[in-house]
Amino acid sequence: MFENIAVVGATGAVGTIIRELLVQRAFPHQRIKFLASPRSAGKTLTFHGREIAIEALRPEAFDDVDLAIASTPDEVAAQFVPWALQRGCIVVDESGHWRMKPHVPLVVPEVNAEALRSHEGIIASPNCSTTQMVLAMKPLHDEGRIRRVVVSTYQSASGAGVAGQRDLELGTRAALDGQPYQYTAFAHPLAFGVIPQIGSPKHEGYTSEEMKMVVETQKIFNDPSLQICPTCVRVAVDNCHCESILVETEKRITVERARELFAATPGIQVIDDVAAGKYPLPRDCDKKDDVFIGRIRKDLSSPHGLTFWCVSDNLRKGAATNAVQIAERLVEIQAAV
Amino acid sequence: MFENIAVVGATGAVGTIIRELLVQRAFPHQRIKFLASPRSAGKTLTFHGREIAIEALRPEAFDDVDLAIASTPDEVAAQFVPWALQRGCIVVDESGHWRMKPHVPLVVPEVNAEALRSHEGIIASPNCSTTQMVLAMKPLHDEGRIRRVVVSTYQSASGAGVAGQRDLELGTRAALDGQPYQYTAFAHPLAFGVIPQIGSPKHEGYTSEEMKMVVETQKIFNDPSLQICPTCVRVAVDNCHCESILVETEKRITVERARELFAATPGIQVIDDVAAGKYPLPRDCDKKDDVFIGRIRKDLSSPHGLTFWCVSDNLRKGAATNAVQIAERLVEIQAAV
Repeated sequence: MFENIAVVGATGAVGTIIRELLVQRAFPHQRIKFLASPRSAGKTLTFHGREIAIEALRPEAFDDVDLAIASTPDEVAAQFVPWALQRGCIVVDESGHWRMKPHVPLVVPEVNAEALRSHEGIIASPNCSTTQMVLAMKPLHDEGRIRRVVVSTYQSASGAGVAGQRDLELGTRAALDGQPYQYTAFAHPLAFGVIPQIGSPKHEGYTSEEMKMVVETQKIFNDPSLQICPTCVRVAVDNCHCESILVETEKRITVERARELFAATPGIQVIDDVAAGKYPLPRDCDKKDDVFIGRIRKDLSSPHGLTFWCVSDNLRKGAATNAVQIAERLVEIQAAV
Repeated sequence: MFENIAVVGATGAVGTIIRELLVQRAFPHQRIKFLASPRSAGKTLTFHGREIAIEALRPEAFDDVDLAIASTPDEVAAQFVPWALQRGCIVVDESGHWRMKPHVPLVVPEVNAEALRSHEGIIASPNCSTTQMVLAMKPLHDEGRIRRVVVSTYQSASGAGVAGQRDLELGTRAALDGQPYQYTAFAHPLAFGVIPQIGSPKHEGYTSEEMKMVVETQKIFNDPSLQICPTCVRVAVDNCHCESILVETEKRITVERARELFAATPGIQVIDDVAAGKYPLPRDCDKKDDVFIGRIRKDLSSPHGLTFWCVSDNLRKGAATNAVQIAERLVEIQAAV
């Protein structure tokens, strides 16, 4: 058990869910502290019925912390993680800053928990769009070795934070009223729209969000030969990311076998009956911790392909839930030592 | 020139645009009649500043018609087309009923105008999601022979007609007000949602909309070996379909060459500068007749692949514009005889 734990970015959208999950899942600890930007310091948050004062994120805040679960902007993570590590605090970090550093394990516990066995104090949780995809890939990869992925995403406003959700709601109200609205989180109007760009230009016309899906997936499966072609698109959905995924495997997997494999994987739920109009919808996956899969079909364009529809709450399994699950595994490993 | 022309389904969303296009494009004719269901008969529509009475769709309505441009439900098309053909009237039909009949040319003029040279009185216009894709495929196919397509769509509410657009608006207003709303055109709420089913189950888990993209594309390119894996998804957009398309060609085509080929193709416009935030958005393609392409990239998952983003007004090039363009080609062919 880690006696003293901290939630870094405790007031944010993901931090709020992390706090809820720590209560719901009875995460073992003696003391907890909530760290956030100085403007939140002094305010209180309720935890297990107690009021806890928020502390400012600064080096000394980690003096007596054993484990921190963090969701902050990249530049904040770049700064605070060394403070924590220097003080012997282990960090589970949800930001993008540390994920691709060679010495940092990038972990989805159902996929590569073994990567947790050796770390240097920091463990990264992947980007939301990557996490649900690698969990969906895992049973197929184990069975037939995935060689190639083509994925198009339908990503929700909450991926751009609370500001994104606010933009979608206020932008939609304005559009319905024929009024102008100044978006803060998106470069184009999201109301009644789709935006085929998430993140900034990164590599040969691909965006940073798209390249995360490539390099993070290769790192998680420890296989740089895994070939992935992503297209990341923002849609007018409040929360939960959807992905249209096609995989090609070395060994052919039938639809029936894929359905069995998905259903047998912890963290995956199958909803797949198109004749009955049943498949994962964002609204049905909201506030759920699992990854939901449906529309499982044989690829009509290659002999060893499968295609399916994958939905998950990007704030939960895509962020908060995965980070807390990593922390739970660290507790288990510590207990087993 | 066809002296006497008719618009069948003249009051519908597509029929309305067909009427506008006939005026804008100065479609040659002497007399025009507007046919619709009996409940519209007797009402009038303005055309070239004149009021024209709508006539009920019945066999005798075609007695003096040389060319009909039609957009009706499939079951209406199944019934009225034989009435027209028996009376020597040529029909350009936008419905799904006749498209796959072996003797019926299925035409996108920029792609396979040659199929118009022999017909038996009826020519079909493809499904909206097919039309924009085959036009985008055409220059790449000519250059490097496409062997495979993987496509995920982001289809607008107007693809489900005026009822779909009404559902999106009223459903969104209700959702913002926390009120219930009974959708008429969709099986699930579309407001702030995505629905990964368009049409009914058709073939091995694929929907009718998805299979249209397969079989219509194969027919248009006259190549049943063309392999296509589609996923058709409805999004909360009023009008214009978007498609994330990946093609694999026999001969490799560079991104630069693809951009040149697209730009040189009549009916295609390239908007492709992700660094400047420029790519086709549904709102920018609304009421335009062209197919818009951006996000052109080398496929990261295969040596001979290209991927891009394709947007078009599904009521125009996806329906009305293509039908009128077919009719214009028929006029040219007739003049050349």
